[in-house]
Amino acid sequence: MAEIQARALYDFIGDVQNGELGFRAGEQLTIVRQDIGEGWWEALNYQGSQGLIPTAYVEIFDLPEPSFPPPPPPAEPSAPPVDNGWNKQGGVPQQASVDEWDDDEWDDESSNSTEIPNQELQGQGNFGLNVAKREVRKLSPSDDSKYGTVKKNYGRFSTFVKAGCEDYLTGHNSTASVHISENEYIKIIESPNGIEWFPNPDPYTCTVSSPKKESKLKGLKSFIAYTLTLSFQNAPVTRRYKHFDWLHEQLQKKFPCMSIPPLPEKAISGRYEEDFITERMKFLQIWMNRMVRHPVIAKSDVFLHFLTCSDEKKWKDGKRKAEKDEYAGGKFFLTLQTPPHSLEIREVDKKMETFCKFVKCMDDDTRQLIAVTQDNRKKMMGPMKREYQKIGGAFKKLATTFNMVKSTPSGQELTGAIDHTADIYNTIGEMFASQPRNDLEPMMDTLFEYKGILSIYPDVLKLHEGAIGKVKETLKQQEEGKMTESDIQTVLQRADVMSYGTLAEMNHFHLGRIQDFKLLMQSYLRAQIEFYTNVTSKLQDALMKFDGQ
Amino acid sequence: MAEIQARALYDFIGDVQNGELGFRAGEQLTIVRQDIGEGWWEALNYQGSQGLIPTAYVEIFDLPEPSFPPPPPPAEPSAPPVDNGWNKQGGVPQQASVDEWDDDEWDDESSNSTEIPNQELQGQGNFGLNVAKREVRKLSPSDDSKYGTVKKNYGRFSTFVKAGCEDYLTGHNSTASVHISENEYIKIIESPNGIEWFPNPDPYTCTVSSPKKESKLKGLKSFIAYTLTLSFQNAPVTRRYKHFDWLHEQLQKKFPCMSIPPLPEKAISGRYEEDFITERMKFLQIWMNRMVRHPVIAKSDVFLHFLTCSDEKKWKDGKRKAEKDEYAGGKFFLTLQTPPHSLEIREVDKKMETFCKFVKCMDDDTRQLIAVTQDNRKKMMGPMKREYQKIGGAFKKLATTFNMVKSTPSGQELTGAIDHTADIYNTIGEMFASQPRNDLEPMMDTLFEYKGILSIYPDVLKLHEGAIGKVKETLKQQEEGKMTESDIQTVLQRADVMSYGTLAEMNHFHLGRIQDFKLLMQSYLRAQIEFYTNVTSKLQDALMKFDGQ
Repeated sequence: MAEIQARALYDFIGDVQNGELGFRAGEQLTIVRQDIGEGWWEALNYQGSQGLIPTAYVEIFDLPEPSFPPPPPPAEPSAPPVDNGWNKQGGVPQQASVDEWDDDEWDDESSNSTEIPNQELQGQGNFGLNVAKREVRKLSPSDDSKYGTVKKNYGRFSTFVKAGCEDYLTGHNSTASVHISENEYIKIIESPNGIEWFPNPDPYTCTVSSPKKESKLKGLKSFIAYTLTLSFQNAPVTRRYKHFDWLHEQLQKKFPCMSIPPLPEKAISGRYEEDFITERMKFLQIWMNRMVRHPVIAKSDVFLHFLTCSDEKKWKDGKRKAEKDEYAGGKFFLTLQTPPHSLEIREVDKKMETFCKFVKCMDDDTRQLIAVTQDNRKKMMGPMKREYQKIGGAFKKLATTFNMVKSTPSGQELTGAIDHTADIYNTIGEMFASQPRNDLEPMMDTLFEYKGILSIYPDVLKLHEGAIGKVKETLKQQEEGKMTESDIQTVLQRADVMSYGTLAEMNHFHLGRIQDFKLLMQSYLRAQIEFYTNVTSKLQDALMKFDGQ
Repeated sequence: MAEIQARALYDFIGDVQNGELGFRAGEQLTIVRQDIGEGWWEALNYQGSQGLIPTAYVEIFDLPEPSFPPPPPPAEPSAPPVDNGWNKQGGVPQQASVDEWDDDEWDDESSNSTEIPNQELQGQGNFGLNVAKREVRKLSPSDDSKYGTVKKNYGRFSTFVKAGCEDYLTGHNSTASVHISENEYIKIIESPNGIEWFPNPDPYTCTVSSPKKESKLKGLKSFIAYTLTLSFQNAPVTRRYKHFDWLHEQLQKKFPCMSIPPLPEKAISGRYEEDFITERMKFLQIWMNRMVRHPVIAKSDVFLHFLTCSDEKKWKDGKRKAEKDEYAGGKFFLTLQTPPHSLEIREVDKKMETFCKFVKCMDDDTRQLIAVTQDNRKKMMGPMKREYQKIGGAFKKLATTFNMVKSTPSGQELTGAIDHTADIYNTIGEMFASQPRNDLEPMMDTLFEYKGILSIYPDVLKLHEGAIGKVKETLKQQEEGKMTESDIQTVLQRADVMSYGTLAEMNHFHLGRIQDFKLLMQSYLRAQIEFYTNVTSKLQDALMKFDGQ
């Protein structure tokens, strides 16, 4: 590879022990390798020192200057050099940490296919996982921030326009001919349960397993690859977190009326610690289960591409195709096939209002339940364990004292039995400490997931509110005779489709919620029952010794 | 009754609403009634106001001045005007609170029959219930001070002399002829369990019940009378706390080698509150059970007099007889009939040393166990109850939110089941709060009792140490030829009897301890098992609702 000259845009304090090369802004560097990936190149400075440098910190001499102003100097190499508008709307940004932020062989073209960042959007819609606030966080079940937080940010109204919903409603994008074949349509049906997505006739599962540490650049840069095994395909694929991240972004972009839950948060430090990997895998599995259960997502091209493609060339092609999907955002609604009758707008409005309140309440409840279970977990593992062990300790001491004196056989039996009881109480203390693994932690996993799902709904509902607003505006213009009847009908009919889509998604949420919370409660109660049964049986064991058994 | 003139010794702030009359030190008062009892007279001041005055605060003109200096001015009328030497050695003092401190028809002569207070003894041996520290205390199972505290006060050595043990050992009191009939002897035997009191061939029980508020002086002064029912006698007797107090004093005086546990502490305030009365009765019953189980005490004249006498005249006679008991204190050992062979002094010494350590350790353990159970009780009633109710509350809120939306039948079932689970967790919280009544509190009752018993043992052991000291002194004098062989043999033989008595009592303690702690542990574990079984069954009830049952 020919040597390329680059100039440093900002100061960079390199970590020499990590093979990095520091430099000052303006310094000239010779790029010796570009095929490192993860956002790093290898460079040589004028003193002859060689090392890794972050690509975003330098500009190459013979490339044309970018047409948009250079991004502000990042404080850390992990800060995003390019702002990606869409990406910030509730999802996980693409370039958040050093190692995930790269341009390696799998997605070196992705920057071309994403939209030009829109400055207007900066600082908006970032209620999901937030780039600027991304910090080193320990991923543990007690970490309340795993799935981000719900901010009551209804700033997506502007995204109603940006996502193309405005254009969709007014029919501006339909000037281009719409070619959708019958089997491409996504059906919405009415069942006794209400308005529903047509169920997936071939449900399947996907298992995320076997996290493997893989490395590039002779071990200097490493990452974790997970194995994804499908119930309908023998050949598993391997995917990295950044691929999940890409998928998440695509799903968000494609399905504007759906609450795509955020991925588990990234963490810069401790990425290769076993606990962290296991924990992240668990949450990727939970996320995957949710996606696979969705009748529309599970059947979508981008999702199936992610799940099935194992060929590098095909992966790139499919990726590019997905990123250029014509029927994403507002145009997604063009692919919906709804029941023939139109919906009563006031009724829809009422349903939305109720659902909006419901989401707010359930979000509060979920937070409260998380707080209560976290607190309970801490109490079980600390004070409650100690409580039983303190009793055990006091019994132990008593048995020791009773052993000081020569005693009758019944006295010796008593001392032995008290000593045994002491051990039992110690064991019960340990049982209390490890019980949260069986009841509270699985419950918390579901609660965290729901916290994530609920955090996206305000945006989904705001999008629909935008449609309702457009309908009202249209009806006003109809009164004033400022619009043709044909244009009016287009708006009303298309808003109806958006309502159908949103209602189907809401219903899908409710049906899932009922299933999930039934399972959550049953599992929790079963684990609690087992626990107290075990405690009882331990105590019976202790008691028996006093009866000379 | 003739009017008597008295002069106030101290200021007294009378509670007018309680019918009391205030006065200043030096003020002259006319005593109009002396038969009020409980340490009160009725008096008239120079202004013509009439009311009750504490007898200890005044002196009558025409009585001779007492030969010992007047007591220091009491801060409250409840402070004891006369110090009672014997009484302070670990027991409950006779005149501690206003209402128990009296000279009514049942014991108006008692002050004549008690010994002249010995100034030397003041401030010594008060490790039991302490007059000077007596304060208004709430009697509750969480009150650590119920049975007083064990102070490692070995100050009873001087009482070794005072109790007449010195005289007994040297045979000085045997110059008076000893008349003990064969059936008056208290037998000590050797069994496979060791040296024992000859068991009581006719064991019996005594129930303390039916506390009744009775009053004197037209309701101005009132007290509680308890009914004592014996298993061998149909006619129950009624006794007041002060009678128990008298009995306790007599038992302590009579049986110097026995640990007579202290009575439940008095409390000046709240004496007629139902809880306090129930609580005191419970502890009187516990005390009574302990006394009745003692083979020597249960058969003693003073004890049987207390339990059986219902005739006022006979009561007085029996009381006087008991107070003048020839075989009390050191002379008690004259009534013991021991196995023929004498004990090996070094072995006895070793046993005593071990027992002394044992008492210290068990006292520590008992305190620790009390602290742990008190703490556990508080946690059960507060934080643990709240923990379950917080979970219940969070479920309740969730059910309310789920009820906001019209749902499918399975959704409604889920909401109902979550709501039911919320109620169950609330109930479990209540179960935690009320559980200590079933397990911890009965355990604490026994522990408190043992704390009391253990608090007396240092004195009992010190008494025996006095005897050993005397033996060593005697052996030294033997070497030096300063004592006649007959006197030497008297000391050795009598010290042997004291050792037998003390060892029999120690053994009695151990046998009781084994029984009591076996029962304590069994009851505790059974209650715990029942509790966790009930919790499990409640949870099963909750789970069933999720299965649509």
